[in-house]
Amino acid sequence: MKITVYPTSDYVEDRDIKDKIVVVIDVLRATSTIITALYNGCKEIIPTADIEDAVNISKNYEKDTFILGGERNAVKIEGFHLSNSPREYSRERVENKTVLITTTNGTKAITRALDAKEVVLASFINISAVYEYIAAAGSDISIICAGTMGKFSADDILVAGALIKGLEDKGVSLQLDDLGMVAKRMYLNSKDDLHGALSETLHYSILKDLGLQGDLDDCLKLDTAPIVPIYSDGVVRA
Amino acid sequence: MKITVYPTSDYVEDRDIKDKIVVVIDVLRATSTIITALYNGCKEIIPTADIEDAVNISKNYEKDTFILGGERNAVKIEGFHLSNSPREYSRERVENKTVLITTTNGTKAITRALDAKEVVLASFINISAVYEYIAAAGSDISIICAGTMGKFSADDILVAGALIKGLEDKGVSLQLDDLGMVAKRMYLNSKDDLHGALSETLHYSILKDLGLQGDLDDCLKLDTAPIVPIYSDGVVRA
Repeated sequence: MKITVYPTSDYVEDRDIKDKIVVVIDVLRATSTIITALYNGCKEIIPTADIEDAVNISKNYEKDTFILGGERNAVKIEGFHLSNSPREYSRERVENKTVLITTTNGTKAITRALDAKEVVLASFINISAVYEYIAAAGSDISIICAGTMGKFSADDILVAGALIKGLEDKGVSLQLDDLGMVAKRMYLNSKDDLHGALSETLHYSILKDLGLQGDLDDCLKLDTAPIVPIYSDGVVRA
Repeated sequence: MKITVYPTSDYVEDRDIKDKIVVVIDVLRATSTIITALYNGCKEIIPTADIEDAVNISKNYEKDTFILGGERNAVKIEGFHLSNSPREYSRERVENKTVLITTTNGTKAITRALDAKEVVLASFINISAVYEYIAAAGSDISIICAGTMGKFSADDILVAGALIKGLEDKGVSLQLDDLGMVAKRMYLNSKDDLHGALSETLHYSILKDLGLQGDLDDCLKLDTAPIVPIYSDGVVRA
């Protein structure tokens, strides 16, 4: 299985992902939030790159059947119901509802992958479910790390490393690119203390400084939401 | 000192480097070759992104006063005097001559940095000279890794890590981005066996498969050419 890892979504070419299974990772926090909402029974998620698109799409839904969620620069969008904290998306709030969500990095990366053969959303909280699914599928994959404001972000790279390690442990024979090798090595060196490994990195620091330690705790736990969300025709479903 | 690390030159925006000292790294092999040529007494180096530009500029020079060098996909360009192996650029061949060079990744990264305040070329073979120079300059830097065919390349990242480690050891207080932190950690984990750390990476494998183990040996030695090449107005001089 050939694995290609992209440090951000900006340099993904359509032709590179067209026939591939793509795994999108934005552990802090978009994919963690989306996975949590689906795990808590929301009907579907519609990720959009732009705020305006989320608002426009929401006009097609009856009141109380949808939730507008998301952030810009880690802060809730004015007029939206929820921000981008996984813990906001509780069963009480999201069950059977449609969630429209737009975030600074993650939903841009997800929508960027629209033309792929299949798009899977990953994070630490569903990492084992994802590598079981990918191992069973058996075909080459591209891993798109959302990054942080267009830049390489260590948090997403660690999730890519965890996915690669999981596939290796299952005996899948892998052909890694350089970033895949680095991701695996980083994860092996960091897995016993993910918070310590990320404590000085940019995205972790921004969220910590905003008082969102609870989100960091939630997002760096393994396998608390063991589902495989698939993005297809603009909608994510479990 | 704030350090920004770019995984390839494609990620660099003009506005990000305008007032910065930029360090360009293409350890396999462009910056290693250019540093070697300057160390061996060549008069100047003119790097170009395109083959055609190198050929056109060469027409301004008298026979035997210049050398056309470079590669595409690691192989010598037809009609050129030399390829891109540091060991080809011996004192006998290059002394007092102008070297026009174009390579797949490195010269593109160098010319990409033209608008920076100052552009320094780095590799393992001049790493101490570069970090002494940067430490003395004291201003923020951007490190542009050339990458391999537009992709993250672990070899260049290791040199970035060696530069960061060198600055830290000199007591320079650093503010690193995520890729800088990863580069430093990778270098610390790999410095006792650079060949082992890179043996399965893409660029190293390509050169090894082409029988260029001698180049790999030369390029991964530390401080064999202790000079600081500066690229300015289209020309590199020591």
